[in-house]
Amino acid sequence: MKRISASFLPPIALAYRSKTPMYRQLYDWFRRAIIDGQMRPGQRVPSTRGLAAELKMSRIPVLNAYEQLLAEGYFETFVGAGTCVARSIPDDTLSPQAVKARKGMQEKVGKLGPRRMSRRGAALTHVPAQSWLDNLGAFRVSLPALDHFPIGIWSKLVARHSRRPPRGIMAYSDAMGYPPFRDAIAEYLGAVRGVRCEASQILVTTGSQQALQISAQVLLDPKDRVWMEEPGYPGARQAFMTAGAQLIPVRVDHDGMNVAEIIRRGPDARAVYVTPSHQYPMGMTMSATRRMLLLNWAVRSGAWIIEDDYDSEYRFGSRPIASLQGLDTDGRVIYIGTFSKVMFPALRLGYAVVPKDVVAAFSAARDAADIFSSTLYQAVLTDFIREGHFARHIRRMRMLYMERRRALVNAIQSQMGDMFEVIGAEAGMHLVALLPPGTDDVAVSRKAAEKGISAIPLSTCYLEPPTTGGLILGYGGANAHQIHDGIRKLRMSIQDQIA
Amino acid sequence: MKRISASFLPPIALAYRSKTPMYRQLYDWFRRAIIDGQMRPGQRVPSTRGLAAELKMSRIPVLNAYEQLLAEGYFETFVGAGTCVARSIPDDTLSPQAVKARKGMQEKVGKLGPRRMSRRGAALTHVPAQSWLDNLGAFRVSLPALDHFPIGIWSKLVARHSRRPPRGIMAYSDAMGYPPFRDAIAEYLGAVRGVRCEASQILVTTGSQQALQISAQVLLDPKDRVWMEEPGYPGARQAFMTAGAQLIPVRVDHDGMNVAEIIRRGPDARAVYVTPSHQYPMGMTMSATRRMLLLNWAVRSGAWIIEDDYDSEYRFGSRPIASLQGLDTDGRVIYIGTFSKVMFPALRLGYAVVPKDVVAAFSAARDAADIFSSTLYQAVLTDFIREGHFARHIRRMRMLYMERRRALVNAIQSQMGDMFEVIGAEAGMHLVALLPPGTDDVAVSRKAAEKGISAIPLSTCYLEPPTTGGLILGYGGANAHQIHDGIRKLRMSIQDQIA
Repeated sequence: MKRISASFLPPIALAYRSKTPMYRQLYDWFRRAIIDGQMRPGQRVPSTRGLAAELKMSRIPVLNAYEQLLAEGYFETFVGAGTCVARSIPDDTLSPQAVKARKGMQEKVGKLGPRRMSRRGAALTHVPAQSWLDNLGAFRVSLPALDHFPIGIWSKLVARHSRRPPRGIMAYSDAMGYPPFRDAIAEYLGAVRGVRCEASQILVTTGSQQALQISAQVLLDPKDRVWMEEPGYPGARQAFMTAGAQLIPVRVDHDGMNVAEIIRRGPDARAVYVTPSHQYPMGMTMSATRRMLLLNWAVRSGAWIIEDDYDSEYRFGSRPIASLQGLDTDGRVIYIGTFSKVMFPALRLGYAVVPKDVVAAFSAARDAADIFSSTLYQAVLTDFIREGHFARHIRRMRMLYMERRRALVNAIQSQMGDMFEVIGAEAGMHLVALLPPGTDDVAVSRKAAEKGISAIPLSTCYLEPPTTGGLILGYGGANAHQIHDGIRKLRMSIQDQIA
Repeated sequence: MKRISASFLPPIALAYRSKTPMYRQLYDWFRRAIIDGQMRPGQRVPSTRGLAAELKMSRIPVLNAYEQLLAEGYFETFVGAGTCVARSIPDDTLSPQAVKARKGMQEKVGKLGPRRMSRRGAALTHVPAQSWLDNLGAFRVSLPALDHFPIGIWSKLVARHSRRPPRGIMAYSDAMGYPPFRDAIAEYLGAVRGVRCEASQILVTTGSQQALQISAQVLLDPKDRVWMEEPGYPGARQAFMTAGAQLIPVRVDHDGMNVAEIIRRGPDARAVYVTPSHQYPMGMTMSATRRMLLLNWAVRSGAWIIEDDYDSEYRFGSRPIASLQGLDTDGRVIYIGTFSKVMFPALRLGYAVVPKDVVAAFSAARDAADIFSSTLYQAVLTDFIREGHFARHIRRMRMLYMERRRALVNAIQSQMGDMFEVIGAEAGMHLVALLPPGTDDVAVSRKAAEKGISAIPLSTCYLEPPTTGGLILGYGGANAHQIHDGIRKLRMSIQDQIA
């Protein structure tokens, strides 16, 4: 057994005034010396008494440090032979040279590192930076009027549920969600959206995005074909790509997704993703005829329909359009919705209504994803709905957004009528402003983001090369002044870009 | 154009005392009649005046219903020709026969439905029911002592943050998490767990389960091989299977995962999943030697190490063991932790510490999964940590769990010393009780669940056929009385099963 005298130890530097306890500093020093190869396997370490004397400190921290190093296997002891660095510590790659080489590698990691991400992971990394999502200024899409949220009522309900929480609010809960909340959602969807379901079919999710991803996991195998609206919602695209699906774009026109094209191009698709109440981003409504044709196609070809009803609460000209799910008698439709827009985004609550025979799979997929949603907000929102605050808030916001939409359309017409063609302003919390042919909408959005304005480039919603550029402008979170000022800055951004 | 007189309409049944408005009842009736084929495409509908007179009601609800049916495309109008059911509505599959057939199919859905789930979805459905997770009684694994949680302090912090929330607490936020919370986590992990990282490397997740699933998505392609501890944590198994990975079991012994076996069986693995501080479920600590051998292997074979440090806060005999991540100089380790056990499970907050060069991919994967975590609890927990409540709570719980562990070990020795062999009782919030050879632990757990006792069968932690049955018994959430009573009920369950 190799014995090296304690006097060969590299100098031990201790910080006597540090908050880190002395035993911990000693432990760290020895561990580092072993890992870096400055102390070698089998090397003898000083006795606790000797080291304490040498360092002029009490023996207790030295004893504690040694005990920990023994417990973790860095040191070993032999009766009569004292303590040494464990001989089983690997020796080969831990020489100073190896450490030096590894430190060099560390600095260059990502270029040199031979370890690989998955194809999914690599694809996710190649999404270009979306600087227009870095601010919460005018025209951030999906941002509601937070300053009009009844925060007083809400925080009273939060306090009610967090002061003396029942065990159920703190412990593990059902992967499908908090049962009273699921009851409230089922009632609301039945009354307002024409959704036909029982509470047992409701899966509570972290926003609609998680509902999309879980649907993708349960329904789609890698390489499965999915029909997507073109242009369409990039969040759905991300969720389906994460499952390895192959996305096929289908153009939308004034009646929504072109169902005839789906029927013509063959039945070999596993699913179709559709926003029939209010197409994202273009804003049209899918006609009744197309809804029925789509359902018939799904029945004939054994496909699923993923209906994303993301903001149908706000419709100005006419009443809300009933859901596609309500027409479905074959359990073909997964109906997805969210509270991010009606309440506030950081609530992180959405839902999927799933056919009864796939409830077990959705529940298990949620369990594998992240077990369940935090219970507090589910309980608070249940009361908010049951006590009538929810319906009242939606009514108020509908009036407010109607005004804001008018302010935005007016501002565009008076300041930029020559540059923008407005479409899809009958519902929801956003509209689309088409740019003159040839304008690079991504460049415009980047310039606008530098001025604190958030405008999503329409081209990012296309799978194929887009025919025209445009900007998606949300008006939920911007008041009249911000809208006016925002349009002024947008005009400057476009002029910068064209010049 | 086919014209059918209004007198051919099926009878319209209206509920005059219903809460559903009259226009809505009329709308629903017409829509249903069209969908079910009782009204055919091109069929003329009565005039609003005529129908109102026939139904003895005001004309306004009839006008509203017609307007909605026109807007959605169920009706169409022609100048001089009145209103009829839209002729573009598909006719073929909507005959009464077809509807009847579909209704029959609906009842048998899941058996007959030709639509398919993904292989993932089908595999998830075949997980047998885990009745032992249906209750929160003694020995629910991972359940902390909720009645000892400082709920007064916590709810004051919740109230502070929800009364006048800054915009950031309600709006969209960073996919990586709330920045002050990430700072607090980085400091905590550096000081207590020896993790070397910057706040920018911290991804806040919905519990550690989401950290596992996102790691799987970013790092693993379908069919990639992953070394798993045997026995090991079923939640990790689920997360990796969802990504399509192939799981290879590696036995654990008294020093943790058998790293020599990993080295011997070849370098063609993409990742290894390991719980080095406190092996789940068996409770041993991975030795320093094996940690270094594992890191060296990962460097040589281009593999990732996923270190799950799920409950290292509670260690009774010795101080907490420093993390494997702290030894890593090559960016090989994804370090995962959770607040579910130290705080409470419904908090749903965990984290992953990821190497710098894969931060962008983890962030994008989180965005695709569910965008971001609700901000309120992140802000509240930041204050809870900064104001010292967190460290104090951990210290108190360490004392409490030490007592509860002793109570459990004593109860087992006095009541069931002949049936149980206890292992892994030096740390954490659970221990393993091995059953006599040949005992069916799943059957025992099911019997115990009927008595309100939660005991996870050890065999569910194995990928290969287990060599011995056992029960995983959590003692965090059970007081002395519940422990005593629980062991009595467990003994009865075992006797029932053996008898």
